[in-house]
Amino acid sequence: MIRHLVLFKLNQGVKRDDPRVAEGYRAFKELGDRIPELKFWECEWNISERPIAYDFAINAAVEDADALRRYLAHPDHQAGVALWREFSTWVIADYAF
Amino acid sequence: MIRHLVLFKLNQGVKRDDPRVAEGYRAFKELGDRIPELKFWECEWNISERPIAYDFAINAAVEDADALRRYLAHPDHQAGVALWREFSTWVIADYAF
Repeated sequence: MIRHLVLFKLNQGVKRDDPRVAEGYRAFKELGDRIPELKFWECEWNISERPIAYDFAINAAVEDADALRRYLAHPDHQAGVALWREFSTWVIADYAF
Repeated sequence: MIRHLVLFKLNQGVKRDDPRVAEGYRAFKELGDRIPELKFWECEWNISERPIAYDFAINAAVEDADALRRYLAHPDHQAGVALWREFSTWVIADYAF
């Protein structure tokens, strides 16, 4: 299994209640039910006020490297990424478990 | 429950086989068995070669905000943080689930 973690930071001045952000949130929330490769799917807003805290997190798991590639290339995932690219940046880490 | 995610980036020039890094890796690996507040504990090296990939990840879960505070303040966690501070930086996200 491969764990896929993503931490998003909203661009300067972008708020969570921005309609574009709300649309992006809904798009990512739905991926867990839409993409069969996702064996585990959590995504939610950060609640920490520490300065090193990012704004939003994805915590996913897939079977193997091929499944991760299929997930990343999936049109619904790509559509969500296109939304988030308009108002955020992100970093990732994948690990085997 | 609160999920606590941390992505670490090794400082420029620092390698995974640096003895300080190996010590830090062992210190974090042991936390899951040492700190009772940790109801879920994964920590491992990143395997993605994407440019936005960080080097190491922690994926933890605790019962609530008080448990998260106790975990963060735990001497064994603090000792691990002191090691990692010597050769890395990190970002976090915490979310309710």
